[in-house]
Amino acid sequence: MKEFQLIDHFFNGRGQLRKDVKLGIGDDCALVQPAEHKSIAISCDTLVENVHFLPSMPAQALGYKALAVNLSDLAAMGAEPAWMTLALTLPEADDTWLEQFSNGLFEAADYYMISLVGGDTTRGPRSITITVNGQIPEGKALTRGGARPGDWIYVTGTLGDSALGLDILQGKHLARAEHREYLIGRHYHPTPRVLAGQSLRSVASSAIDLSDGLQSDIKHVLKASDVGAVIDLEKLPLSQALRDSVDSEAALNYALCGGEDYELLFTVPEAQRGALDVALSHAGVKFTQIGQIQANQKLKLQLAGAEYTPTTSGFQHF
Amino acid sequence: MKEFQLIDHFFNGRGQLRKDVKLGIGDDCALVQPAEHKSIAISCDTLVENVHFLPSMPAQALGYKALAVNLSDLAAMGAEPAWMTLALTLPEADDTWLEQFSNGLFEAADYYMISLVGGDTTRGPRSITITVNGQIPEGKALTRGGARPGDWIYVTGTLGDSALGLDILQGKHLARAEHREYLIGRHYHPTPRVLAGQSLRSVASSAIDLSDGLQSDIKHVLKASDVGAVIDLEKLPLSQALRDSVDSEAALNYALCGGEDYELLFTVPEAQRGALDVALSHAGVKFTQIGQIQANQKLKLQLAGAEYTPTTSGFQHF
Repeated sequence: MKEFQLIDHFFNGRGQLRKDVKLGIGDDCALVQPAEHKSIAISCDTLVENVHFLPSMPAQALGYKALAVNLSDLAAMGAEPAWMTLALTLPEADDTWLEQFSNGLFEAADYYMISLVGGDTTRGPRSITITVNGQIPEGKALTRGGARPGDWIYVTGTLGDSALGLDILQGKHLARAEHREYLIGRHYHPTPRVLAGQSLRSVASSAIDLSDGLQSDIKHVLKASDVGAVIDLEKLPLSQALRDSVDSEAALNYALCGGEDYELLFTVPEAQRGALDVALSHAGVKFTQIGQIQANQKLKLQLAGAEYTPTTSGFQHF
Repeated sequence: MKEFQLIDHFFNGRGQLRKDVKLGIGDDCALVQPAEHKSIAISCDTLVENVHFLPSMPAQALGYKALAVNLSDLAAMGAEPAWMTLALTLPEADDTWLEQFSNGLFEAADYYMISLVGGDTTRGPRSITITVNGQIPEGKALTRGGARPGDWIYVTGTLGDSALGLDILQGKHLARAEHREYLIGRHYHPTPRVLAGQSLRSVASSAIDLSDGLQSDIKHVLKASDVGAVIDLEKLPLSQALRDSVDSEAALNYALCGGEDYELLFTVPEAQRGALDVALSHAGVKFTQIGQIQANQKLKLQLAGAEYTPTTSGFQHF
């Protein structure tokens, strides 16, 4: 396993080390100093080759995305990223792959100010587990359980692009040349809405990040909040690339059921709607009202005044 | 992946939920409330089948040990266990296996008061990644870097039992019936020295846990502290079971080079030696002085007054 010691060079001492990291990689544990009066948000995601990503995925994109999907969970709670560990299992120590993977990882880590403080590298079938820690002022976390009847439902960004990007990569779809790069980029380099999540702490009643698709993920909010919702499908934010690439019904299905958008879905009470524009004005992301929370516990999808049933169900990676 | 939702039943809502866990499994992140004026210790270990454990390892022992090896890292810093995440990759969702694995995991978790607050379950070749968080009063952590010339070197418990237990399991060695259970138990159910680690915060100058074997692990302390050491091999604490099972040279090699003992090695300044007995009196573990730190940066192994060279080198899992 000697060659695996070389791996350390791609990770130890790389990236920004936050001032609250008192002891980084290299002892039995890392030591970090949480800020006073803050809670710590913890989340953990594993990506397994051939389950969550194709062997053809560029290592740089994989490194970036493995962290981005975890940052998206922090964003959905309104947390500020702080520290992370990386467990990397690899069939072999390939220098080129490791350099690109670590470059992608630290691209996201440095941008979002999260420090790598620990990890483990083992030999085996390729998989990546990242555990992230974020900080939130005590009592200010956004959960899935706070939506109330009458609250307005919003999403950030546009929906369905990532799933179409994956279909293009798998040869299931041909997109116009001018849209290919954008759509594949949305699949490989999702943007965790970290700043938006923090900005929403004062105005949103609930939030979740969209990893399995709108139709599937909104149900977690409805269940946790014990409410229902009406979604106006005309309002779903669709990118020009998506609309140009597929017909309107397919576009709707991508937006409803396509996974891995890593946009935020959040609810805002009527009284906070005015404050929402101000809260998100510096977050650099557009947001769209797509429906409203209801007292009955049903999810109603509405298109041109009639109830709509999607032609596909949930999202499967492949 | 529907069957994988069943897995949640073996982990969610199981075990003790600490009062400082404000939100457990089930949202985008868990939320925990660190105590004031404490640092957080973070560590992460992956166990891969056929690399770190044999497919024949009982699931209950695997669940216990996967956590115990992480708790041992917390112990070596003097940290109190607090929260953890579990990333579990499995080829299939086998109810019996999962029940036993989770029983073993929560046996350790409940005993050492650590709460499972998040995780991810994925399909793939069997592996387990656990990330643990512990708490330590600010500035009180034990590191590898504090040993000074003249400090006395100690270890907890006895050394070499786990490696002999592994050899017995692999049929490389036949032990007497009355020792088999003990030795295999030391391999399957190592005891992380959590209470001892916390008790040592006030008296030890450095500490590390022994996972790769004494000869290999002490070098991390010497390097981090920029010192050397003399070890008196006659003093190495050997169990009756080890001494009864192999000749004295083999016993020495097990104790020096056998891995996975998960005992603590620590150094104590002369002025603190009197306080050591009191500090460890309630930790329920014996401890043995085995040598002394030196100014020169060499590791000297001494047997009957002469320098000793082990007949095997480092520990390999298999």
